[in-house]
Amino acid sequence: MEAASTIAEVRERVGAWRREGKSVGLVPTMGYLHEGHQSLIERAAAECDRVVVSVFVNPTQFGPGEDLESYPRDFERDLAKCEAAGAALVFHPTPEEMYWPDRSTTIHMADISEELCGKSRPVHFDGVCLVVAKLFNIVTPDAAYFGEKDAQQLLVVRRMVRDLNFPLRIVGCPIVREADGLAKSSRNTYLSPDERLAATVLSRAIRAGQALAESGERDASAIRGAVRDVLVQEPLADVEYVEVVSQETVRPVQRIESPVLCAIAVRIGTTRLIDNFFYDPAA
Amino acid sequence: MEAASTIAEVRERVGAWRREGKSVGLVPTMGYLHEGHQSLIERAAAECDRVVVSVFVNPTQFGPGEDLESYPRDFERDLAKCEAAGAALVFHPTPEEMYWPDRSTTIHMADISEELCGKSRPVHFDGVCLVVAKLFNIVTPDAAYFGEKDAQQLLVVRRMVRDLNFPLRIVGCPIVREADGLAKSSRNTYLSPDERLAATVLSRAIRAGQALAESGERDASAIRGAVRDVLVQEPLADVEYVEVVSQETVRPVQRIESPVLCAIAVRIGTTRLIDNFFYDPAA
Repeated sequence: MEAASTIAEVRERVGAWRREGKSVGLVPTMGYLHEGHQSLIERAAAECDRVVVSVFVNPTQFGPGEDLESYPRDFERDLAKCEAAGAALVFHPTPEEMYWPDRSTTIHMADISEELCGKSRPVHFDGVCLVVAKLFNIVTPDAAYFGEKDAQQLLVVRRMVRDLNFPLRIVGCPIVREADGLAKSSRNTYLSPDERLAATVLSRAIRAGQALAESGERDASAIRGAVRDVLVQEPLADVEYVEVVSQETVRPVQRIESPVLCAIAVRIGTTRLIDNFFYDPAA
Repeated sequence: MEAASTIAEVRERVGAWRREGKSVGLVPTMGYLHEGHQSLIERAAAECDRVVVSVFVNPTQFGPGEDLESYPRDFERDLAKCEAAGAALVFHPTPEEMYWPDRSTTIHMADISEELCGKSRPVHFDGVCLVVAKLFNIVTPDAAYFGEKDAQQLLVVRRMVRDLNFPLRIVGCPIVREADGLAKSSRNTYLSPDERLAATVLSRAIRAGQALAESGERDASAIRGAVRDVLVQEPLADVEYVEVVSQETVRPVQRIESPVLCAIAVRIGTTRLIDNFFYDPAA
């Protein structure tokens, strides 16, 4: 496995693979990798000849007062995990390599970025779109792999790829969980031992909502109520949102008649955690 | 030469060329081709194995009250000109093929889109960026060819390519003029015979400004004054702007100390025409 910190190095490496007729997969990450990321890399390695993992804490997707500075970083450990999962190249640029001081191009995602996390993180998805578009153009992959954990991000990236005609496939991969159900997240490291115990309430709430949907409940408010009933039992949990939205429009639905996403955001202490399930009533 | 109206056909054709190791050039146009476009196609054919010409009157780059509906169209004549100039494929999609009804992704160009034409056409360059980004992703060319006649568009596209890391070269090509100096433009067809005569004032004004710059004048207001002095002699000419801007920032300069663009926009009757010259004091 190799590592590259410049765009030129990545292009040279990928260009050489292309001349050999190799297919290329991309796994964009912000580093501090966990088993969720590893599952993306393993999936990419199973489907593509060569896998590029980007490790870049992207400043444009953090809003004022968010955790850009404190976001956890451990590049040496990330390298070992990438290699173990089957990556061929790790791209770890500096912010200066990625962004010109006089950059003037932005990408805006309307509509589907406005609900859920978009409400409390108004610049987040535009920043995601910008860095993902750049990575697509730098790596020119055949496929890019994103976790379903960041469900709205996955839907936003799919929409950008569709609207701008990026010539690649987006592959969504299932949430990877701890033994007690907590969705793997780099931000779990922020949790104190008490908060770590309390954080299991998210996955218990999600399971309750999912069970109700699978039992045939089609009233979205009943699903939201069931999820909320679990969350409010945890004194350390401060609920930001519990929503059932259309997978297509990312707008709240009354009745579940087409594929939906049930998504929650909850603060445990000062740490903001998210979890979700996708549900298709026709499946 | 072939013609394609769907994105899938273009991808199939370009994919086949790629497998044969061919390089690909793209010439994006709005059709109603003239010798200016033909010079772009010929340049692309000289530098690339295969040339794709897109013919698409892009609705997203027209503002309310602009000439989207009346913009001249003659696809059969365009096909003949493309073939004569050496194109291998003409891509002529419908608006429905290019834009999803629920599209939610936009590209915004700040700063360098705000002066010159950006003042009177506030949505124009965002629309140009959107369609050009889509064409880049559909055709995946090695190089794309743009006329210097649309000077701000050329600078905007270069900036977008730089900021979003599109993996291709942008080639700017010189203005092609009628025998009497008028810059070739599809919109010249709007001019009545009297207006057509009056329209020569643009190129005479540009020549006056260029001669002054080449004689060593470094005061931008003197250049603007010389250009304006010519324009005001034509009673049918209504000046929208005469500006000398930095090629890098597209902001007005006082003194010419780095590469500049001197650009003008003038209405002759109801027809809006533009012209310009690039000048580098170090060249």
